[in-house]
Amino acid sequence: MSFADTPSPPYYAVIFTSRSSEEAGDDYAKTAARMAELAGGQPGFLGIESTRGEDGVGITVSYWESLEAISAWKRNEEHQAAQKTGRETWYDRYELRIAKVERAYGFNRDAE
Amino acid sequence: MSFADTPSPPYYAVIFTSRSSEEAGDDYAKTAARMAELAGGQPGFLGIESTRGEDGVGITVSYWESLEAISAWKRNEEHQAAQKTGRETWYDRYELRIAKVERAYGFNRDAE
Repeated sequence: MSFADTPSPPYYAVIFTSRSSEEAGDDYAKTAARMAELAGGQPGFLGIESTRGEDGVGITVSYWESLEAISAWKRNEEHQAAQKTGRETWYDRYELRIAKVERAYGFNRDAE
Repeated sequence: MSFADTPSPPYYAVIFTSRSSEEAGDDYAKTAARMAELAGGQPGFLGIESTRGEDGVGITVSYWESLEAISAWKRNEEHQAAQKTGRETWYDRYELRIAKVERAYGFNRDAE
């Protein structure tokens, strides 16, 4: 996973917290990778950060220029199919939050 | 890790993405747990979600009632000391974003 190279705020974040089910196997991993690739080609996409722990809980944050860009990505057909399988099979639970990033700062040892 | 039981929006999220250094050992894990506990006792705290992958990249999202609550937590003395050691020792890199949550929804298989 790499850090998202986002511009100065304001921009939007989609915070997706999920717990995988026991049925989330190779097909899930493949689809997750495909969705990250597909999102990267959408208008208004700014970046994505994602990690999952050994307990099956993952947090993925994607960054977008506008609420309209987020809505369009939600409606994307291939993404819609993945969302459906996610609810049917891959996730026991998820929470999705849409938020407007107002401030941002960072630290990078290599850049000090 | 459990899901944060947040109220209806609006509220605020602090998205903290980090990559641990090789020097982040037991003392780091202890401090991280202590900070989560300490945050939980701060005025305006709403919840926290956190996960870290095998590659050392972690995402922690804490939720707050207001920007003032976030500022007060940032200034907390014990937290300030942890932030300092984080920059000196535990993190190779981090990005922190403060965002206003405008919409939220979820899915829970057990509740279907």
